[in-house]
Amino acid sequence: MKIVWIGAGNLATQLGEALHRAGHETLQVFSRTMASAEALAGRLGCPATDDLDAVVSGADVYIFSVKDGVLEGLVSRIAPRTGDALCLHTAGSIPMDVFRGHARRYGVLYPMQTFSKDCPVDFKEIPVFVEASAPDVFAQTEQLARSVSDRVKEMSTERRRRLHLAAVFACNFVNHCYALAADVLGRDGIPFDVMWPLIDETARKVHRLPPVEAQTGPAVRYDRNVMVRQCAMLDGEPERKALYEMMSRSIHALALRNEAERKETND
Amino acid sequence: MKIVWIGAGNLATQLGEALHRAGHETLQVFSRTMASAEALAGRLGCPATDDLDAVVSGADVYIFSVKDGVLEGLVSRIAPRTGDALCLHTAGSIPMDVFRGHARRYGVLYPMQTFSKDCPVDFKEIPVFVEASAPDVFAQTEQLARSVSDRVKEMSTERRRRLHLAAVFACNFVNHCYALAADVLGRDGIPFDVMWPLIDETARKVHRLPPVEAQTGPAVRYDRNVMVRQCAMLDGEPERKALYEMMSRSIHALALRNEAERKETND
Repeated sequence: MKIVWIGAGNLATQLGEALHRAGHETLQVFSRTMASAEALAGRLGCPATDDLDAVVSGADVYIFSVKDGVLEGLVSRIAPRTGDALCLHTAGSIPMDVFRGHARRYGVLYPMQTFSKDCPVDFKEIPVFVEASAPDVFAQTEQLARSVSDRVKEMSTERRRRLHLAAVFACNFVNHCYALAADVLGRDGIPFDVMWPLIDETARKVHRLPPVEAQTGPAVRYDRNVMVRQCAMLDGEPERKALYEMMSRSIHALALRNEAERKETND
Repeated sequence: MKIVWIGAGNLATQLGEALHRAGHETLQVFSRTMASAEALAGRLGCPATDDLDAVVSGADVYIFSVKDGVLEGLVSRIAPRTGDALCLHTAGSIPMDVFRGHARRYGVLYPMQTFSKDCPVDFKEIPVFVEASAPDVFAQTEQLARSVSDRVKEMSTERRRRLHLAAVFACNFVNHCYALAADVLGRDGIPFDVMWPLIDETARKVHRLPPVEAQTGPAVRYDRNVMVRQCAMLDGEPERKALYEMMSRSIHALALRNEAERKETND
């Protein structure tokens, strides 16, 4: 298919390259900043533009991959000019209906992964959730998704929103915990790579156990001495301290709930 | 070396088995609950006891691996009877000096990993941090540690405490974020394994990028629309909602600080 990209961020870069490798042709990359547009266009071997009025017609698919706050504006300007082409967005949290009244054939193609421009990923393994405005549109969207991923599933706007919330917990919040650990280590000049075996095993474990069963450490043991001392180490940083306390309480609460549920099941 | 275990939890189980495989002999396992003592003793082929007065003498090493709150009591009861044997504990947050006045030769052997009884780990890869009361004691502690791990390092009580705090962030808090994600998915009947590629990539990425650079998602983009909508999905759960808000603010604050630091470096 012939593709026009609206947006040139991390996701557009990785999905754009995956579609390129799968043999699709990119006609153009639009971004509000020319440097971004050119960077992705260079990777995909096509022209770049930062001029909304210069977005070309004649593509089979227009893929909108931009910040939520600007998506609606771009959809209302560009989608009406796309005729019978397929209009897709790639966002977990945005309803498919953002296109309603602007495009004739539209849908969502949400690859659930964390993308950075220079971290190549194996797209085949990435779960891709699709939704479309009509059966023939769905078939086309699914075909496009299947050309890059082996794990394509249909999912409604409502369920996709909850999936995206779960992804924020399992990825963005997780990564932030890594960042806070790096910060703690940095002050002692300890390189972050000392954490890799722990990080990898923590991720590996939840392939074998439900996360609530995999939990270890002071909060789940309710080892108050350790928690109090660790909190004291964060005395100069009230926000981090509050975060530590809130996470510890939440871990303990979930462990108690899990235990109660198991007991009930056994009774 | 001949080993006596004081404690039979997750860490004792995994380290006990690793030492067993490395050819050390376990003389006995003590635990406050006989069932736990017997479970580990069964794995290590030795007697079990829940009677403090029955802890045998004549071992080369006594390894204390128990909850922080009970460690001091056990040390004061058992360590004085160990003569010239090596007394070790395995806790990140507890000072080596917990043994002072109770044991003659003592130290710490802290394997930084998350252990569950039935999740075997490759001990060779696990960073083990050691500390000891005197050079000859250090040599013996290091020798024991090196018999199971290729990544043994000396570390003081003070630095180990900070390391353990970092480990709580990078492991326990991370795992809790997985658990919260599983909870969100569970309500929609979506199996947790859909998250594996995202979880694995999130862990993989911080092998290549500092975590603060690896961050993606609504909070770091400061995509207010998405954050407000995701918060609204947590309306019925004030604690989760507060956690979501606090994590999002913390992500944004760290991103701003990182940007400011980079700018300063470039100026």
